[in-house]
Amino acid sequence: MKDAAEILCIGTEILLGNIVNTNSADISRGLAELGINMYHHTVVGDNPERLKEALETAFSRSNIVITTGGLGPTYDDLTKETIAAYFGRKLIQHGPSIQSIKSFFRRIGGEMTENNLKQAMMPEGCMVLENHYGTAPGAILEGDGKIAIMMPGPPREMGPMFREQVLPWLAKRSSQVFRSHCIYFFGIGESALEAQLRKEMEQMTNPTLAPYAKEGEVMLRVTACAPSEAEAEALMEPVIQMLQQRFGDLIYGIDVDNLQTAAVRLLREKGLKAATAESCTGGYVAKRITEIPGSSDVFECGIVSYANSVKNKVLGVREETLKQFGAVSPQTAAEMAEGVRNLSGADIGISLTGIAGPGGGSQEKPVGLVYVGVSSPWHSEVKELRLGRGYDKERELIRWLASSHALSLIMGTARMKP
Amino acid sequence: MKDAAEILCIGTEILLGNIVNTNSADISRGLAELGINMYHHTVVGDNPERLKEALETAFSRSNIVITTGGLGPTYDDLTKETIAAYFGRKLIQHGPSIQSIKSFFRRIGGEMTENNLKQAMMPEGCMVLENHYGTAPGAILEGDGKIAIMMPGPPREMGPMFREQVLPWLAKRSSQVFRSHCIYFFGIGESALEAQLRKEMEQMTNPTLAPYAKEGEVMLRVTACAPSEAEAEALMEPVIQMLQQRFGDLIYGIDVDNLQTAAVRLLREKGLKAATAESCTGGYVAKRITEIPGSSDVFECGIVSYANSVKNKVLGVREETLKQFGAVSPQTAAEMAEGVRNLSGADIGISLTGIAGPGGGSQEKPVGLVYVGVSSPWHSEVKELRLGRGYDKERELIRWLASSHALSLIMGTARMKP
Repeated sequence: MKDAAEILCIGTEILLGNIVNTNSADISRGLAELGINMYHHTVVGDNPERLKEALETAFSRSNIVITTGGLGPTYDDLTKETIAAYFGRKLIQHGPSIQSIKSFFRRIGGEMTENNLKQAMMPEGCMVLENHYGTAPGAILEGDGKIAIMMPGPPREMGPMFREQVLPWLAKRSSQVFRSHCIYFFGIGESALEAQLRKEMEQMTNPTLAPYAKEGEVMLRVTACAPSEAEAEALMEPVIQMLQQRFGDLIYGIDVDNLQTAAVRLLREKGLKAATAESCTGGYVAKRITEIPGSSDVFECGIVSYANSVKNKVLGVREETLKQFGAVSPQTAAEMAEGVRNLSGADIGISLTGIAGPGGGSQEKPVGLVYVGVSSPWHSEVKELRLGRGYDKERELIRWLASSHALSLIMGTARMKP
Repeated sequence: MKDAAEILCIGTEILLGNIVNTNSADISRGLAELGINMYHHTVVGDNPERLKEALETAFSRSNIVITTGGLGPTYDDLTKETIAAYFGRKLIQHGPSIQSIKSFFRRIGGEMTENNLKQAMMPEGCMVLENHYGTAPGAILEGDGKIAIMMPGPPREMGPMFREQVLPWLAKRSSQVFRSHCIYFFGIGESALEAQLRKEMEQMTNPTLAPYAKEGEVMLRVTACAPSEAEAEALMEPVIQMLQQRFGDLIYGIDVDNLQTAAVRLLREKGLKAATAESCTGGYVAKRITEIPGSSDVFECGIVSYANSVKNKVLGVREETLKQFGAVSPQTAAEMAEGVRNLSGADIGISLTGIAGPGGGSQEKPVGLVYVGVSSPWHSEVKELRLGRGYDKERELIRWLASSHALSLIMGTARMKP
């Protein structure tokens, strides 16, 4: 029988809407990469009857049931009890888990209470999953061709346990290996990309190509299935090469976390430093760059010049420029980029000035009009962006897209370095 | 029979983990505020048999079933067909929906295809819900004491339809009105707050108090139920007053979106301007402030001084200070805050310098050590924060918490204004 899995999330806080169920998405993504079918997600509260019923329903249609939540120390945490009963097992004390719960409390300097030891009671015969980010261990229980995988509810604990312990365990059950690579695009929309790749996407069966739109970006997942990792990689390689040849610099990275990571990496490779002068994005570009550990190697200075006086005094934008063309103009953007480069001594100066909305727009300069400027010894330019779509609440989106364009322009300029 | 609702989300993309199911959380929160019980969330793919089965299961235990997804124009969008069949109704053309689909395409300048008209086929006798953000209308269908509420899948379309049309419709069914206020705390942890309010939380039945921890913050929801809005408000008023008296400035706002909104609002009320000098947070504070429309009234200048040379050259931090005490020191923080205030002419200068990690920490100055400084004509101080917990991936959390402390310090300083 081919594996079919389903997810059963346990927690009244999800039913009350206090928590967004990100665990289900994370687990689903992992199983999809292994090629394991998934037909249902279910959420129930911390209620023993409904939990039991949901578990029976789940096992009536799937052989793998993955639960999150209900492993905590309080009386209403009943996942292990319910699943052990379903499998006809008892709960027994698990020595190593007691030790690691004790050492966890020593480490964080908190006080352990008696009920924390409830978390070390595990179903007889289960495989215990260590929790490196909290006190509740997880467990895998097998019997009668059925598999129950129990993980804690907090995503910070569930995530690493799933990726580091559960996914490898599931992958070992399969004679096939699934591998995928994620190709990230900026500067081309999903439908344009799909139109250019429609034939390939329809005809290819192994590897497969699947596009996912993110805000202002597209991710293309290439997935191959083969008896070994090396064979899966060999299937994907020519496809990735074809994509690189066809799309060139529209691809900002492969298997990279995001645009800012790719930008910091490229700057480091090229031995370059960038500096930012931001108006409408108000520090968003600097914030995204400095998210990346070690970004201090490539970034030293950012100026948020909301006021014209700061553009003039700190960045050296000329008063005549501001007066004649306005703060939102290609001329101001050019002088901001040059100004922050001079001020900081960086190789690449990047600037943003525009109208993020909702107010401040005009016929001539509507909400969403943004100028992104770059200044470097080998290349300078200003791009005009039109990011507004006329919605009420698009300030965040406009700022996000503008900051992405700035990061992309940093990358483009770094690539041109003679 | 008391209403019980459940949510049935339809979409293979959710089962593949390509989408996080935020709709369920949004709907659940709304129903919880109306006091409607919710015991199950279910997700199924775009598969007619499993959808039918899931619908039957849902109606076997709840009288209200709310679906999202499956209203699109393609052949695998089958929600209306399946639900109409369950209620024994036909699908018929809905004139106004045809008109609004046509005008939607005119507005966005896109081309309408024949299958878009499938979206205007509605179950006979239903109440049509207009979609102001897309082409698929929703519907409410009643019969035999059962209610099916169908909404589109994209959160940008579902959210407004739910809040503007579905929630008011559901509220009207009830003779009671539920109202709540959200009280936001910064500077006190969830357990400390709970400990101080345990008695009230246990004894109070109307209104009720429920705390929710967010990262570094706590939100306390006060909910009252009464025959009228005015009576519900009257029940909550003394409780909110008690909280304000007891917790004072630990409450940063009531029914406010977030800390940055509260900070911008307070600065505006007081007629003050703030400026930021950020090192470890790299623009996060500036970015959060400038998220708020109209923040240019209270914020004009931010400096991201990652390098010591920028701290010295732009902010005027003395070289001796940097040499003697280091960049991460209360002395440097104090001079940064003063420096950015002088540079910008703002009333309040705020500074951050610290170690966000994962590298760069030492025994003496560990990861998570952050100094937040404030400078103003009436008050200056530097706070030492210890935000590290020893986890691998806490850079983002440290930066977030540090930026929250900075916003809180801006508010505290603004309140002191003589």
